[in-house]
Amino acid sequence: MNPSGRPELATQILDALDRVLAARRDQDPEASYVASLHHKGMDKILEKVGEEAIETLIAAKNAANVGTDPLVRETADLWFHSLVMLSHLGLSHRDVLEELARRFGVSGHEEKAARDPGRGPQPTAT
Amino acid sequence: MNPSGRPELATQILDALDRVLAARRDQDPEASYVASLHHKGMDKILEKVGEEAIETLIAAKNAANVGTDPLVRETADLWFHSLVMLSHLGLSHRDVLEELARRFGVSGHEEKAARDPGRGPQPTAT
Amino acid sequence: MNPSGRPELATQILDALDRVLAARRDQDPEASYVASLHHKGMDKILEKVGEEAIETLIAAKNAANVGTDPLVRETADLWFHSLVMLSHLGLSHRDVLEELARRFGVSGHEEKAARDPGRGPQPTAT
Amino acid sequence: MNPSGRPELATQILDALDRVLAARRDQDPEASYVASLHHKGMDKILEKVGEEAIETLIAAKNAANVGTDPLVRETADLWFHSLVMLSHLGLSHRDVLEELARRFGVSGHEEKAARDPGRGPQPTAT
Repeated sequence: MNPSGRPELATQILDALDRVLAARRDQDPEASYVASLHHKGMDKILEKVGEEAIETLIAAKNAANVGTDPLVRETADLWFHSLVMLSHLGLSHRDVLEELARRFGVSGHEEKAARDPGRGPQPTAT
Repeated sequence: MNPSGRPELATQILDALDRVLAARRDQDPEASYVASLHHKGMDKILEKVGEEAIETLIAAKNAANVGTDPLVRETADLWFHSLVMLSHLGLSHRDVLEELARRFGVSGHEEKAARDPGRGPQPTAT
Repeated sequence: MNPSGRPELATQILDALDRVLAARRDQDPEASYVASLHHKGMDKILEKVGEEAIETLIAAKNAANVGTDPLVRETADLWFHSLVMLSHLGLSHRDVLEELARRFGVSGHEEKAARDPGRGPQPTAT
Repeated sequence: MNPSGRPELATQILDALDRVLAARRDQDPEASYVASLHHKGMDKILEKVGEEAIETLIAAKNAANVGTDPLVRETADLWFHSLVMLSHLGLSHRDVLEELARRFGVSGHEEKAARDPGRGPQPTAT
């Protein structure tokens, strides 16, 4: 379940990415890719989200022949650019994960219940 | 930084989603949406990833007029279906987040450095 | 060059589609798929354009295994929904084809030159 | 119905594009954009089709504010790259238009009927 032995991996990485994205947002667009995206504006950010989605699909179709490493990299690009999109509007991964938690009936308090789906709250998107 | 007061929110939610996705993967396709996606196969899963990416872009373009709630929901759909895609190939969010951690020089041990970008490892995708 | 023996095939079909799209635009949304798209509005039309683009990519990736018939059908869906999108804004295939003609230096008068690229006008997008 | 006064516009342009695409397919990839796409292969061509679809959606969403010229250009890019995709597999616009003609019951012989929808063959995708 947790092969890396780091139980808080996701939180650490996503919170660290939040700080990186916030710090770079107002940097010189010439010095930072993230700053250049914010400077070019939402349409450019959305083009990148769309492009990475397309490249993710192509990498997934190629996985049977070339393995899953390219797919992992393209999915990372897709999630990264969607984090930039959220950041551009003052949102973060927390807003999205809390939405998923609501749908699946998992949260800090209810998380134990999720381990036992037979007794947990009913997810709304099964 | 952590308005919810739950320091491990992302890890808890993503790990719980992992368990939900794994548990439903082999259920009756008629009883579970996730099972039905796996049953229909990768092309159907990829169509959904692509559709949700498109709907995310449209919701982002509409955010100035209608607010960001639809965007949060569509991004949740996009991430959820990309988690199903990863699950279909035996991967999880951990593979993607570890890729992002490598690029940005953040990890369990290095995370403190990330708080102080001036001294941290150089990210490869700035 | 013209295996069907119908020299004006494209014009006939696209003009006929124009008439069909115009006639259906104001029909009862319950009776006509085209009318229902216009009734639901531009976002729904754009979702369909995006979905058909995704399905076109997947069909192209599958062509080596299953042949090109699904790709032809998905590309037809993509072009059809982009014609509906143009129609929704009072545009037609003519606007798009005239743009392509300008780029490639082909038109009613210049078309003969295009048969002999060595002497024709220089395309702007080679 | 035909503001340009060129009744065979679509056929002339699409046939000319076919010739341009065929002539450039085997040129030096350094000298021709089309040749460079074929040289890089189907995945690169599909990335471009996907990117242009995304840019078409964004231009359509912007049309109310900035007019339809960018949308016409992006749709031209989308159709152009889908023609390159078809060409890469030995197909052309004729295959796609004949598919649309079949669905809508229009063809060289039946085209007159299409002018009078009340008596024409029933389209299969209304």
